[in-house]
Amino acid sequence: MSAASANERPGRTTSRSILTFDAAGEHRRTDDLVTEEPLELRLRAGSQQSTLAVTMRTPGNDFELAAGFVYNESLVTSRDEIVGLSYCVDSDLSAEQRYNVVNIDIRAHTLPDIERFERHFTMTSACGICGRAVVDRLETLGVTPLSEDDLRVDIATILGLPSIARASQSIFERTGGLHAAALFTTDGRLLATREDVGRHNALDKLIGWAFIEKRLPLSNTILLVSGRASYELVQKAAVARIPILASVSAPSSLAVDLAKTFGITLLGFVRDGRANCYAGEQRIIPTPESL
Amino acid sequence: MSAASANERPGRTTSRSILTFDAAGEHRRTDDLVTEEPLELRLRAGSQQSTLAVTMRTPGNDFELAAGFVYNESLVTSRDEIVGLSYCVDSDLSAEQRYNVVNIDIRAHTLPDIERFERHFTMTSACGICGRAVVDRLETLGVTPLSEDDLRVDIATILGLPSIARASQSIFERTGGLHAAALFTTDGRLLATREDVGRHNALDKLIGWAFIEKRLPLSNTILLVSGRASYELVQKAAVARIPILASVSAPSSLAVDLAKTFGITLLGFVRDGRANCYAGEQRIIPTPESL
Repeated sequence: MSAASANERPGRTTSRSILTFDAAGEHRRTDDLVTEEPLELRLRAGSQQSTLAVTMRTPGNDFELAAGFVYNESLVTSRDEIVGLSYCVDSDLSAEQRYNVVNIDIRAHTLPDIERFERHFTMTSACGICGRAVVDRLETLGVTPLSEDDLRVDIATILGLPSIARASQSIFERTGGLHAAALFTTDGRLLATREDVGRHNALDKLIGWAFIEKRLPLSNTILLVSGRASYELVQKAAVARIPILASVSAPSSLAVDLAKTFGITLLGFVRDGRANCYAGEQRIIPTPESL
Repeated sequence: MSAASANERPGRTTSRSILTFDAAGEHRRTDDLVTEEPLELRLRAGSQQSTLAVTMRTPGNDFELAAGFVYNESLVTSRDEIVGLSYCVDSDLSAEQRYNVVNIDIRAHTLPDIERFERHFTMTSACGICGRAVVDRLETLGVTPLSEDDLRVDIATILGLPSIARASQSIFERTGGLHAAALFTTDGRLLATREDVGRHNALDKLIGWAFIEKRLPLSNTILLVSGRASYELVQKAAVARIPILASVSAPSSLAVDLAKTFGITLLGFVRDGRANCYAGEQRIIPTPESL
């Protein structure tokens, strides 16, 4: 999924061809996305080793991330306890798996208690992890790409969603501290909004509502999220079979990759009368006259 | 930590007394914060039960959150597989632990494979969890409240930090998709900035930098974060002994509680020439003449 070739580190940004809709109509351009790639953190002591975590991160300063993680979790308290920080470079690693595993070697001869840590998703090989693992995990769970549909939505409908959602967000108005997820019909009618301090929780609540109401799969709906579009939001949309995901903010590189793989239309920066389409543009009808 | 009394559900917002600094000087007022409380999700099948996750959430629509979680993780695929959703109501639960555990009863007689799930932090009692558990966990890790110090910082210095940090954020400018964490001296000089698609990663990288450079503890610094101030950011500040945490956005209720418990000064909405102080106001010098 990464654009990195052999021996080249993944960049902090990834260039993609996108379609921008604004008052002047639609035009194709290249956009820089923030790179989102998994990083596995491995703690090693003596002959023991264990995975502490797999975090979705932007490549760069990976050793700092590893050191900060073990310090913040009180696994080490001083610099001298870490005797080495290195990338895992097994010779059988594919190009896109390089630089996605950091080994943290500590002075102790045995591993500290790390029972409270866990692997966030199943890994696919001994010393490699990459965006592909995220897709593999979904496939393991039985999630398939959305089949071709003839759904088409006017861009003007999409551009009108944020103001409809905002009008229904009661807590955000008072606290400014919430994420929201809102579900719409394809002609722009609001079905439900849920809010939470956590972006994933807001979407879990919204999909849970649909689940309890027996409205799944959500094949003919549009999902609008208030924050950035990370891969996890795309993943949840794929499970619920939501064909169109719109965000008022930026998507990550992995969110775009996942959306393409699973046949989901992904829009970002839906605000101020414009929007960018990163995947699945066949579902969007440009209507410059109505902008 | 919750304001809920016995048998009363935790609210979605929490009122707190805060100190606002703006061009007119400082004034005390009441502010509504979004409530952040842990919710434990328990899956039950036949006589078996297991904790799927503990998530930090805003109370409300908890059964939807539970249903959405198990659906999104492909643990159930249809409404009929869930035979019950209920709060755990052990009689020995304290008031603040009520409504923070949801039992999900599924039709199956045995639990599905849930090895990939985990408990995000150690729980303190059999059927109860609350904000207090977060404090307890930190204490278990040996993190103590910051001792009294005589650090005092001009509010004008705080108000100037966001523009200094923005000038150093290269990727954000291009992608709009990043969180940033920036560390300053107490007279407003930038020490380091780190960016990441994940807010915790940005702070882990920043603290990892300080760790590798042997600059810990960060007793005489100010931390500025680009997004909302959640409890986890306050927790990391406490571990690194950072006395002042400033956010350009809103804090959660639990972030404020933790900041008070650990003696950290917490500022929010630091933008457009104003700021709110939620905890530790003794470190802030109001200077209306310089605003």
